[in-house]
Amino acid sequence: MMASKWEQVAEAKRAAVFANITPEYIIPQHLVPPSSQLDVTVFPKESGWFSQKELDITGSTSTQILQKIASQTWTSEEVTRAFCKRAAAAHQLTNCLSEIFFTEAIEAAKSLDEYLHKTGKVIGPFHGLPISLKDNFNVVGKDSTVGFTSLVDDPASYNSTLVDTLEKLGAVRYCKTNVPTAMMIPESVNNVYGRTVHPSNRKLTSGGSSGGESALILFGGSPLGVGTDIGGSLRIPAACTGIFTLRPSFGRFTTQRCRSGLAGQEAVMSVNGPLAKTFEDIIYFSKTIVDTQPWLVDPKCLPIPWRPVELKKKLKIAMLWNDSMVVPTPPVTRALKETAEKLKKAGHEIVDWDPVLHPQATRLLGRMFIADGGKSIRKLLAPTEEPFRPEMNFYEKATELGSYEMWQLHLERSELQRQYLEQWRSYGGLDAILGPTTPYSSVENGGFKHVGYTGVFNVLDYSAVSFPCGVMVDKDKDRPLTNHNPLSETCKEIHAEYNPDLVHGMPVSLQLVANRLEEEKVLEMTKIVLQACRL
Amino acid sequence: MMASKWEQVAEAKRAAVFANITPEYIIPQHLVPPSSQLDVTVFPKESGWFSQKELDITGSTSTQILQKIASQTWTSEEVTRAFCKRAAAAHQLTNCLSEIFFTEAIEAAKSLDEYLHKTGKVIGPFHGLPISLKDNFNVVGKDSTVGFTSLVDDPASYNSTLVDTLEKLGAVRYCKTNVPTAMMIPESVNNVYGRTVHPSNRKLTSGGSSGGESALILFGGSPLGVGTDIGGSLRIPAACTGIFTLRPSFGRFTTQRCRSGLAGQEAVMSVNGPLAKTFEDIIYFSKTIVDTQPWLVDPKCLPIPWRPVELKKKLKIAMLWNDSMVVPTPPVTRALKETAEKLKKAGHEIVDWDPVLHPQATRLLGRMFIADGGKSIRKLLAPTEEPFRPEMNFYEKATELGSYEMWQLHLERSELQRQYLEQWRSYGGLDAILGPTTPYSSVENGGFKHVGYTGVFNVLDYSAVSFPCGVMVDKDKDRPLTNHNPLSETCKEIHAEYNPDLVHGMPVSLQLVANRLEEEKVLEMTKIVLQACRL
Repeated sequence: MMASKWEQVAEAKRAAVFANITPEYIIPQHLVPPSSQLDVTVFPKESGWFSQKELDITGSTSTQILQKIASQTWTSEEVTRAFCKRAAAAHQLTNCLSEIFFTEAIEAAKSLDEYLHKTGKVIGPFHGLPISLKDNFNVVGKDSTVGFTSLVDDPASYNSTLVDTLEKLGAVRYCKTNVPTAMMIPESVNNVYGRTVHPSNRKLTSGGSSGGESALILFGGSPLGVGTDIGGSLRIPAACTGIFTLRPSFGRFTTQRCRSGLAGQEAVMSVNGPLAKTFEDIIYFSKTIVDTQPWLVDPKCLPIPWRPVELKKKLKIAMLWNDSMVVPTPPVTRALKETAEKLKKAGHEIVDWDPVLHPQATRLLGRMFIADGGKSIRKLLAPTEEPFRPEMNFYEKATELGSYEMWQLHLERSELQRQYLEQWRSYGGLDAILGPTTPYSSVENGGFKHVGYTGVFNVLDYSAVSFPCGVMVDKDKDRPLTNHNPLSETCKEIHAEYNPDLVHGMPVSLQLVANRLEEEKVLEMTKIVLQACRL
Repeated sequence: MMASKWEQVAEAKRAAVFANITPEYIIPQHLVPPSSQLDVTVFPKESGWFSQKELDITGSTSTQILQKIASQTWTSEEVTRAFCKRAAAAHQLTNCLSEIFFTEAIEAAKSLDEYLHKTGKVIGPFHGLPISLKDNFNVVGKDSTVGFTSLVDDPASYNSTLVDTLEKLGAVRYCKTNVPTAMMIPESVNNVYGRTVHPSNRKLTSGGSSGGESALILFGGSPLGVGTDIGGSLRIPAACTGIFTLRPSFGRFTTQRCRSGLAGQEAVMSVNGPLAKTFEDIIYFSKTIVDTQPWLVDPKCLPIPWRPVELKKKLKIAMLWNDSMVVPTPPVTRALKETAEKLKKAGHEIVDWDPVLHPQATRLLGRMFIADGGKSIRKLLAPTEEPFRPEMNFYEKATELGSYEMWQLHLERSELQRQYLEQWRSYGGLDAILGPTTPYSSVENGGFKHVGYTGVFNVLDYSAVSFPCGVMVDKDKDRPLTNHNPLSETCKEIHAEYNPDLVHGMPVSLQLVANRLEEEKVLEMTKIVLQACRL
């Protein structure tokens, strides 16, 4: 049978991306791990294919790398080459990249080296650092397909504003990373590039929609990446892979001129944020970006400078044990309990959060996404006759709302936001909510079922950090619930499908949530929580 | 012929409002100026009906009143009584009030006096000051009809958040003021209360939609009022009456729990702002409100404290001579020229603003208002079979947009916002745009035709001040254009209808516009411009 048009486009695109891998970065056939090898994170160290210096570089944090480049211990060129090589490997083993531009990256790195060599000065706070970008960041001359075959070979004619900002700060761009179709599935799978898998266990998902980023970063192919989040798209992949992220409130980091899956949808706003293996890098990125005063170039950004925070010595934290829709899987509940205990021991006040408004917020989010009756997505599928993926069934079946109904939805959302803040205030001096990022550590490819834990805070536009809390799944401790009283059909399915053997050893992440536009505070509080976790 | 249902409701409501006027505040029949008397601002002083103390109180600024109350020179009760009386007169002569609650106001004032007497302290920065409110502010137990007969006898069950805030700060609420139907006409006329007229010339409009406020304040019936603005609704009435206002960007002052004419419409956001005869009172109100940290109670408010501003000595101001749709009437153009000259003399740099994006912004605003196909308004008219007013023809004929089309409108607006900022930056160090607030000083009732000068800055969400620049219409200087080359059909009509005899002596206001969320800066710059105007 002849492949249909979209399949041909997709196949050609995948080949074109692969062809952009510098030949020396193609893993020699004899070193390629068998597909039965689930954990490929061991590949860089065990294969012998990487030099010690390449391993040192790609094993360093952004802050360390920036110091080594600034002190001229390492060149940006060798740093960039090392990350290109490791990113290439990551792509070959987890299918995490959507665009590859290593050659231009190495040229850019050389220029930066030259500048530093000549002037003795760095060009900016990201001088020489390779930073990976989620596929929806526009880069002149590169595609931003966000998983649609119709957008293949439609290169951007302008950069996203953040891409320009990063360049001015000295960052080197070298690749873009895979996403799900329209960035609207919590796993990273689409009809152009296929599926990105988890580097620690290729049977598992690296999450979505910034799941190309999370896989790449966990594998060591990027020291720092930028993703986006409209329902959990930063936090879900960060949690699935046990890395860090900040979901800022809208208006702190610029989202201007990025490609959106649901372009023009504003009832809930998409935001950008960093992903990294170390928390310090998240803070460094966030402060650096806000320090550029993004409001001078993006009219939607808020003129709020980076603010120092003084925390109370004793934080008041409300535990979100479950969202009254889905009970987290056993390792997540254990992580919540252990973390709460550690926080109490560290002298903080722990109370329980009542998730009374969470179901309504989650329903609202779903209605916002499909308010156009799936038209935006249908129009992007049509040119190549690309079918709806089964995960997009919700969009395929949707009925368009008229503007009047949309306005009623806005009213309902605004009233919910008001009530949530009122509830928050009713706790008296509450600093944060601590809960699951997702019901999972990670989950089998195709199995991710509930975005309620993250999505509520998109509807509210609260600042949130997802962080690995130090707890790993233990198949002996984290047995399936025997007396589970499911809160919903989804809850039942999630617990029926929970497989401790499959996720054994995976890190568990939690989500710390502060109020709207409290990015500095939520980061500072995460430091405190991380200290407590290490006790 | 029997009056139809809505007419009966309206008549009863008007009678009920009138019945709320304390009998002693009904102007004695023999003192009522004849309807042929156009200027009724002279009434308080000339009628002999007001005591000298009442005239002193109602002739004072908010700041003066607050000092006199704090120092116990005046009681809040006597201040409140004086304003109730003068507001009652204003209503009888200009039809500016929609709700009257003098009795409760006097009781509240007495409590405040008692508190001050007992403790020696004021309760807050508005201690004892009567503040008038536009009709759409919800006050428990009072109607907020926003001009719809269907909303008569539907009292609010909660206060608008700002109403609670003002109460905490010590303000006394005593009346609400008239608006046009749905607050969507630039004059204040509706089927419940009828038309509010200009106190200086009752043939003219006091503007809209906050035109009950502007008439009341100009007459001296309120020292300080709060209105709202989604297309010019603060600035147009302020300009028509020669008083001051600030249109803040969204998120500085809380709009939570106010009644909207187009509830849930968010493509362009309505904002609140103060109206007063003196500029100092505008600054005092603005700082006082932001100092309450409204973001703690309204999740849509931004955590931006009141910021001190240091201006450059030499400001760079771009003149908006016309918006390429309508040439201002002659007195407004003269005011622009004279003000530009004075600013130059004061050492500032004056350049010309290119209004290339203004027509698109104005069209966009119109499309946003009718995106629901007029459904919101139709649903409010239906219960009492109230007809569309002729001014609302635009809404009656509108076709509803689907959410998909709405999303495209958002995209167009966001791109326009981006381009406008880019244009602003292209001027290099531009501080402000100075232009007309409206094409008029004021205009005959029913004659207001163009909201483009204000509406553009709603689409952009820029901060703007409307201020009387000191120029008065002079029928000899401001002759109709003889060689007018109209920019549009509206432009032609406006100039054909321009009547220098009718507006002779009216103050001309201008609009100073700063960037988004630059409220402190635009206020500080207005000070500079006012100083120059007085040269």
